[in-house]
Amino acid sequence: MRAVTISEPGGPEVLGWGEVPDPVCGPGEVVVDVAATAVNRADLLQRQGFYPPPKGASAVLGLECSGVISEVGEGVTGWSVGDEVCALLAGGGYAERVAVPAVQLLPRPAGVELATAAALPEVACTVWSNVFMLARLARGENFLVHGGSSGIGTMAIQLAARAGARVFTTAGTPAKLDVCRELGADVAVNYRDEDFVERVRAETGGRGVDVVLDNMGAKYLARNVEALADGGRLVIIGMQGGSKAELDINALLRKRGSVHATALRSRPATGPGGKEAIVAAVRHDVWPDVERGTIRPIVDRRLPMSRAAEAHRVVEASEHVGKVLLVPGQ
Amino acid sequence: MRAVTISEPGGPEVLGWGEVPDPVCGPGEVVVDVAATAVNRADLLQRQGFYPPPKGASAVLGLECSGVISEVGEGVTGWSVGDEVCALLAGGGYAERVAVPAVQLLPRPAGVELATAAALPEVACTVWSNVFMLARLARGENFLVHGGSSGIGTMAIQLAARAGARVFTTAGTPAKLDVCRELGADVAVNYRDEDFVERVRAETGGRGVDVVLDNMGAKYLARNVEALADGGRLVIIGMQGGSKAELDINALLRKRGSVHATALRSRPATGPGGKEAIVAAVRHDVWPDVERGTIRPIVDRRLPMSRAAEAHRVVEASEHVGKVLLVPGQ
Repeated sequence: MRAVTISEPGGPEVLGWGEVPDPVCGPGEVVVDVAATAVNRADLLQRQGFYPPPKGASAVLGLECSGVISEVGEGVTGWSVGDEVCALLAGGGYAERVAVPAVQLLPRPAGVELATAAALPEVACTVWSNVFMLARLARGENFLVHGGSSGIGTMAIQLAARAGARVFTTAGTPAKLDVCRELGADVAVNYRDEDFVERVRAETGGRGVDVVLDNMGAKYLARNVEALADGGRLVIIGMQGGSKAELDINALLRKRGSVHATALRSRPATGPGGKEAIVAAVRHDVWPDVERGTIRPIVDRRLPMSRAAEAHRVVEASEHVGKVLLVPGQ
Repeated sequence: MRAVTISEPGGPEVLGWGEVPDPVCGPGEVVVDVAATAVNRADLLQRQGFYPPPKGASAVLGLECSGVISEVGEGVTGWSVGDEVCALLAGGGYAERVAVPAVQLLPRPAGVELATAAALPEVACTVWSNVFMLARLARGENFLVHGGSSGIGTMAIQLAARAGARVFTTAGTPAKLDVCRELGADVAVNYRDEDFVERVRAETGGRGVDVVLDNMGAKYLARNVEALADGGRLVIIGMQGGSKAELDINALLRKRGSVHATALRSRPATGPGGKEAIVAAVRHDVWPDVERGTIRPIVDRRLPMSRAAEAHRVVEASEHVGKVLLVPGQ
């Protein structure tokens, strides 16, 4: 089969499109003929050699896909050849075919075109597992997500608004702020002009936000803690602003706050903290509203996999809103 | 009434024993004739002027007491004059009498002498709320508590062992380590001789501990994160080793770990995160085993309140094991 290849660790130009060995369908797995994959920031790090795939995972990039099941492995029940699905992957999505544990499959939601469904698994599973399963955002609470126009941001805004939270977000351009508001953000802060901590304080009468979903890491650590309400939960899922920063434990203690740092990819497929439970929860709690059309995948553009370099440049420069899809072929 | 007085912020010598106004029994409160109070590290900070009482709390030291109810305020049900109780206080325990919200009362456990019962409220509520309600320590998990011979430590070891966790602890002398083992610690590390991270790794086959209860703050932050297992929870309840330290977010993220910092005193009496729910849980989940004698209050010594300065010196120098009690009088 063909897949996106990496000649050596480096910039987007190291990405090619060529022949690689076909995936093998192990027990408990299915093979999916890929309709589309989507670009995640982790892919950019992996391309540069900073984020090696977990043990046993494909060396090919790609943490999610949609497509049609073409092979069903030993012991798999509930899925058949021909089923239209999307899936959370530990790797391998930038290819014509990919093997994936059946527990990481989701049915293509009715009403969502097959390729577009590739925009859903990572953002739905990341937001649901972190904001709801872990941080337990509740109705009436205040929620802040940074990077509101990113894939994660666009899903977090929608799901938090649906849950009855008051939604704060940050973004870097007026057009992106508009998208955030359309998706349900109550307060959208341009981080280039305004300090989000001051804005949160002003808008909440000094109370702060109960949950923060953060992709910046070190750069925002102190300000995120400042922005927390009593009992607030800061969940860090990215380190675009570095990984080491001073934590003011006393500031956190005065609020009885917590700092969580998590990742989806390194989780086991099954067992405690595994992907199976997250995928099942997303199917149960998120999919019905995706099928109703009230929770929407946001797609910025769709490019052929042979132009993966261009897709990476777009994401690296944060030119996109929502997800950038890649479809197999020239 | 008489109470322990503070002439000015400073060392133990600023503590005196003199007349102060009687407490007033507000709605929802009772007045307790104090049989004993116990020294907490927070008292040492408050004496030095670093830990002002929360709004509305007594200026007198003392975060817990035992005694007999002498007055019942408006709207209080379930408690009567003459009841023997112990209580979590926002302050005021170093006195002959103290007013306390009825929701913060616990009955004196059968089989525990009234003064000794003053050793229980802070440690039982702190350990239960943090290790079980917040960090959800589970059977078969690995648990580490620092300062195993402290009041908190002695209760944490007992409750974690009861829960079927494997208990690791640190202490600074062979005699203290012996006490920890007698109370149920599986592995007791002398922090003066040995690195607890290495010992935890060696004893767990590299897996680490699922929950850490920490009183050191900054000084141990990096090593506590190092010691965590995947999905581990670090709960910081004291800052004896400072309050600001570098957090390696990437180290935490690789483990999908969390850092919580909490305090009991600043919690509201009722409502979300309030003391009422914690006290009720302790009464339900801890008190029965205290009455059976399988969970024991550990008392180091008992001194009259007029010698509060001596009690503070003992705790400041960490000469004690378990709790130091103070009883009213010369």
